[in-house]
Amino acid sequence: MRSQPRMRPPDGAEPGSVLDHVDTPALLVDLDVLDANIATMASFAAETGVSLRPHAKAHKCAEVARKQIAAGAVGICCQKLSEAEALVAAGLDDVLVTNELVGPAKIRRLVELARHATVAACVDDPRNVAELAAAAHGGDVVLALLVEVDIGDGRCGAPPGEAVVALADTIESSPGLRFAGLHAYRGGIQHVRSAAERRDAAHAADERARIAREALAARGIRCDRVTGGGTGTFPFDAELGVHDEIQPGSYVFMDADYARNEPASTAPAFAQSLFVWSTVMSAPSSDRVVLDAGTKSLPPDSGPPTIPGWPNLEYRSAGDEHGVVVVPPGSAAPSLGEKLALVPGHCDPTVNLYDWLVCVRDRVVVDVWPVVGRGASY
Amino acid sequence: MRSQPRMRPPDGAEPGSVLDHVDTPALLVDLDVLDANIATMASFAAETGVSLRPHAKAHKCAEVARKQIAAGAVGICCQKLSEAEALVAAGLDDVLVTNELVGPAKIRRLVELARHATVAACVDDPRNVAELAAAAHGGDVVLALLVEVDIGDGRCGAPPGEAVVALADTIESSPGLRFAGLHAYRGGIQHVRSAAERRDAAHAADERARIAREALAARGIRCDRVTGGGTGTFPFDAELGVHDEIQPGSYVFMDADYARNEPASTAPAFAQSLFVWSTVMSAPSSDRVVLDAGTKSLPPDSGPPTIPGWPNLEYRSAGDEHGVVVVPPGSAAPSLGEKLALVPGHCDPTVNLYDWLVCVRDRVVVDVWPVVGRGASY
Repeated sequence: MRSQPRMRPPDGAEPGSVLDHVDTPALLVDLDVLDANIATMASFAAETGVSLRPHAKAHKCAEVARKQIAAGAVGICCQKLSEAEALVAAGLDDVLVTNELVGPAKIRRLVELARHATVAACVDDPRNVAELAAAAHGGDVVLALLVEVDIGDGRCGAPPGEAVVALADTIESSPGLRFAGLHAYRGGIQHVRSAAERRDAAHAADERARIAREALAARGIRCDRVTGGGTGTFPFDAELGVHDEIQPGSYVFMDADYARNEPASTAPAFAQSLFVWSTVMSAPSSDRVVLDAGTKSLPPDSGPPTIPGWPNLEYRSAGDEHGVVVVPPGSAAPSLGEKLALVPGHCDPTVNLYDWLVCVRDRVVVDVWPVVGRGASY
Repeated sequence: MRSQPRMRPPDGAEPGSVLDHVDTPALLVDLDVLDANIATMASFAAETGVSLRPHAKAHKCAEVARKQIAAGAVGICCQKLSEAEALVAAGLDDVLVTNELVGPAKIRRLVELARHATVAACVDDPRNVAELAAAAHGGDVVLALLVEVDIGDGRCGAPPGEAVVALADTIESSPGLRFAGLHAYRGGIQHVRSAAERRDAAHAADERARIAREALAARGIRCDRVTGGGTGTFPFDAELGVHDEIQPGSYVFMDADYARNEPASTAPAFAQSLFVWSTVMSAPSSDRVVLDAGTKSLPPDSGPPTIPGWPNLEYRSAGDEHGVVVVPPGSAAPSLGEKLALVPGHCDPTVNLYDWLVCVRDRVVVDVWPVVGRGASY
């Protein structure tokens, strides 16, 4: 009972099938574009001299992570311990959990995972550090911990200055713990539309990380790395010299929300590789057709999907399992049974709804990859 | 490779464990409340004389469906064919798919499913009916089809009147097909806040179903049932006498969005049975704490979760895996490591994120049920 199989892949998702035979909804990835995006970010990091540790919260998929490592990434990030467990079980061996892990169950699991891979996690509270120290000591492992810096977004993190220094000092003086740097990531600014405003916001956050790093240096505490930065801000984070390591995730896939950002002039370009494959299941009227993909296939948190190839058409959410496509007067409309590839509003929660990534090149299925971190929220 | 296990249940989710030992995020159901909700709706249906066919899109769980059947439900609804397949595989034997099934792959699967259970599906297009007729004839089964009526929400359905009659007539005259009634459901009005306005909207939709039914009668086509109605409108749908069968789903769990509805005076009361169990993973400041449940654990489409027992505190989404709890000046706050039970904004997409329902009575785990329809979008 406690081990249940996942959903099987959609019908027709077999290597060699033409895309039109893949049933819907299905999550598609164009491997040519994915490979190009991975190479582009790897080149940026190499040219800029920052380490690249892509965030696997976007893809939750071991095959994508392995491509990133093969292209030069130093390791991966995960947001949750269960994501890290799933990816280590699938063969990845260097994972930073960019989050606090609180409570005896998670600390026990972190100690266990540290026996099998190079892992690190974040802290922002001395009580948590004390529990981690006790568990590491009892478990006979060394846990690498980064201090998360409050970079001004009202979420987690210790204020730069004395609080960060005290945490790092406690870590360094605890047998079983190792201070592995500062975590400084600000999610809320990744989608500031104006490149100039996004740059200013990134630099303001980075300034707090710089203060924290200098406070450590003033107390003689060595800081191996400052890590952070997402697909919206990595060129700005890299240019200041505060970050040694960047953590972009969405660049492998991109989404409709990122497409609305004004790109930074210093950023390389990424193309859309992720699509939700959907069928017209009703064509009741000349002003609309209805797709079989609603909010359970296309999370609406960052706006509706776009429909490449149909610039006049607009997707309007119509419930958990329906999407209405509004057809303006005089515009052509897809017909009953026709399949459309939609660009999701937000790639991360979209991927989290699917058990399989259907990999396509030139509209032919070439592979089907399990999303091993799907639902890995704990 | 093509059969992958689901995520395991959260640590501590073992029968006999106290709730505080269950790790987070986890999806909890209070079985005493669930049982009471199921009994309450069954009594309403029995007293009103309508058939009850609860919608399994809300729970996607065979154990919940079996409780509903045991209490008198005539069968269940599913929104997707893969949901129906998962629930039939788990032992349910009477399923209405409240949606159009378009394309050869789905039609093949519907024919196959009809060999193993009493199934029905909806149609709104003569081309789809022709394909279903050909498949049923070739597959040597009789497919029960309901005509979906366009009840004015701009989604699927044939207009009441001649279009509905023509579809029913085609079904009746096709060997291998059986006309099984009218489907008339309007999702968008379930959350109209004012009971009077919700009643008016339900009656307006029901009036279109009544016109369709009378058009069929005028042509001598027998209509076994009109089915529809959700947790927000079922008392209004039942009172008009148009619906023979109601399809409420959310009543088993309820959610923060339904709690904002003004209840109908004729409706029985349902209580909250579904919760997302979450841990305070950061307590960085007196004005906030941070929970380990973000939009990947609590979909934000119908507003934020509420926090029972902490009336002064407000949940604010802070990304895919973080939830900030805003603590007003002078208010008590939960402490680092403390666990909170949140009421999700919208039960249906919340359930769809979890592989397991952790069943609790009096804060002790009594069972763990697989959400067999999780991710069943195709």
